[in-house]
Amino acid sequence: METLYFKDNQLHLLNQTLLPIQEVFEAYTDYREVAKAIRRMVVRGAPAIGIAAAYAYVLAALEYQGLSQDAFASSMSTAAQTLADARPTAVNLFWAIHRMERRLQSLPETSGAPRALLEEAKKIHREDVEMNRQMGQLGAKAVPWNAGILTHCNAGALATGGYGTALGVIRAAHAEGKVQMVYADETRPLLQGARLTAYELTRSHIPVTLITDSMAGALMAAGKIDMVVLGCDRMAANGDFANKIGTYSVAVLAKHHGIPFYTALPVSSIDRSIADGSKIVIEERPPEEVLGFGGIQTAPAGVSVCNPAFDVTPHSLLTGIITDRGILYPPFRERLRDICSEIL
Amino acid sequence: METLYFKDNQLHLLNQTLLPIQEVFEAYTDYREVAKAIRRMVVRGAPAIGIAAAYAYVLAALEYQGLSQDAFASSMSTAAQTLADARPTAVNLFWAIHRMERRLQSLPETSGAPRALLEEAKKIHREDVEMNRQMGQLGAKAVPWNAGILTHCNAGALATGGYGTALGVIRAAHAEGKVQMVYADETRPLLQGARLTAYELTRSHIPVTLITDSMAGALMAAGKIDMVVLGCDRMAANGDFANKIGTYSVAVLAKHHGIPFYTALPVSSIDRSIADGSKIVIEERPPEEVLGFGGIQTAPAGVSVCNPAFDVTPHSLLTGIITDRGILYPPFRERLRDICSEIL
Repeated sequence: METLYFKDNQLHLLNQTLLPIQEVFEAYTDYREVAKAIRRMVVRGAPAIGIAAAYAYVLAALEYQGLSQDAFASSMSTAAQTLADARPTAVNLFWAIHRMERRLQSLPETSGAPRALLEEAKKIHREDVEMNRQMGQLGAKAVPWNAGILTHCNAGALATGGYGTALGVIRAAHAEGKVQMVYADETRPLLQGARLTAYELTRSHIPVTLITDSMAGALMAAGKIDMVVLGCDRMAANGDFANKIGTYSVAVLAKHHGIPFYTALPVSSIDRSIADGSKIVIEERPPEEVLGFGGIQTAPAGVSVCNPAFDVTPHSLLTGIITDRGILYPPFRERLRDICSEIL
Repeated sequence: METLYFKDNQLHLLNQTLLPIQEVFEAYTDYREVAKAIRRMVVRGAPAIGIAAAYAYVLAALEYQGLSQDAFASSMSTAAQTLADARPTAVNLFWAIHRMERRLQSLPETSGAPRALLEEAKKIHREDVEMNRQMGQLGAKAVPWNAGILTHCNAGALATGGYGTALGVIRAAHAEGKVQMVYADETRPLLQGARLTAYELTRSHIPVTLITDSMAGALMAAGKIDMVVLGCDRMAANGDFANKIGTYSVAVLAKHHGIPFYTALPVSSIDRSIADGSKIVIEERPPEEVLGFGGIQTAPAGVSVCNPAFDVTPHSLLTGIITDRGILYPPFRERLRDICSEIL
């Protein structure tokens, strides 16, 4: 399953706001429009928005390639800032943009920039898929036989370059015959669980049962859930992590029921510059998302609303962190430090 | 705020499925249609469906009053069964029907039945409002000053004869100046929190902030919630209770954060015939409610769904039980036995 690709100097994004009713790829040639698409969640999921931003940076290079060297550098810097401003929480966005900027700076002259940058963006994309497959293989070891698995939001092929992080683990475990049922939280307000995870798993012939977010506790009490695995938008140096709003509640419920709770992430989601989760900026989204459902207004007009897109789960609620380098267990700060220094 | 009344031999129900967009009272003369309205949740909330069923029993008596004594008795028995079958979980429904049947059996002849039964139904209705006001006054003592209060679903005037159980406590505490903010879980799948609680509190000028069910944990972690109070559809002899799906998750979250957690209920919600919550029948509702909302489909067609209307919260997660006789604290089995024997 593909959520984005670059072809003929255009970035093609599957418009995820229209799923599962319509499957429409839209072509982009203007990086500013890609920034808007990231904000509107046409493309979403921490790894996928990193990849989309990398390709958008290529679009900027194509647009500016006729400029003088100084003007080109300055315009590319503006483009990087515009893309970085699209959403504040997922660190992969900044990581991908920085990597693209470093590649640009390494070039002897600007004439070859678009081609070199496209190669770099494709490498980021390809590496993401490879990491996901690796993460899936390694993470599947944590899945018990005949497992009922709960997931929240969509950390699947649609949220990444392909295959998925949390759903990558589920895909690999399913291939090994270990998965009895995946329970997908619908994930209000934007229903990524109902619209994307249920769709993605159904298309991949993996058994899935859709539930409202409020049902997870009752299912755990009924003994239906053997493991929780979900994604991550940014992880601090100590293992605290931001993920879709509702993740924290699931973590507390899992702890109460003694159910293993994992997050799966590429190393690009780790932000060692912040010591703990209290430093993660949480995006507040428009009230309309909570006041209605699928475009229909359901609450009285003008009622006050909270709409944080993410919450922060403390590392103390995590059983393990699934990465493409293996599963990390406590103490997380040390294990995260080790894995990040291996890569540098 | 009124949700139902009986006038000119008709039962008038505010159609709660249309709120908050439309405020429409619908008139009923056929008890079978009232049973359907209960099932469709035109009227909902444990106390309110008890009152609606009592009035519907009057409609049956009006319909059958021309019959012979035996035929009348047999038809009334069928009517009682039809009403009792409307929904399985809230015990107030059965309690109200039994009380109406006892009143009928106490009559010397059937000719005066409609009038006597109407008096009894009005008495049930009046008593419910009085109990709610009493419960509100007593329960308000448990509310701290400057309180952030979380509630789930709608246990308000709309769910009762008027005033409300959990929202009655909030109304009384607000009148005393103790309430800083009420946080209303939207309560998927049928959004009673968004549609009914936000509407009812806004109309009563009580400050309310609407959240998705998945946000409650993050708000607790942020220190915004000082108390949880919500309703009850049926309580077992030991204090275990069924309430709207998601209640159990809120209870676990409150426990984890050390936040006082109360349910407010009339004694008619207590079912001493069952020892604990494992015996409470939980209604499973149609999958369409989870697959979308208001006729808009959001999930892929044909995906498997769970849709229990209620869950069971064990008494161990309860701080106290707010009743019109005062607030009960552990041991709940003994306190519930005491309160029920006082009434008999």
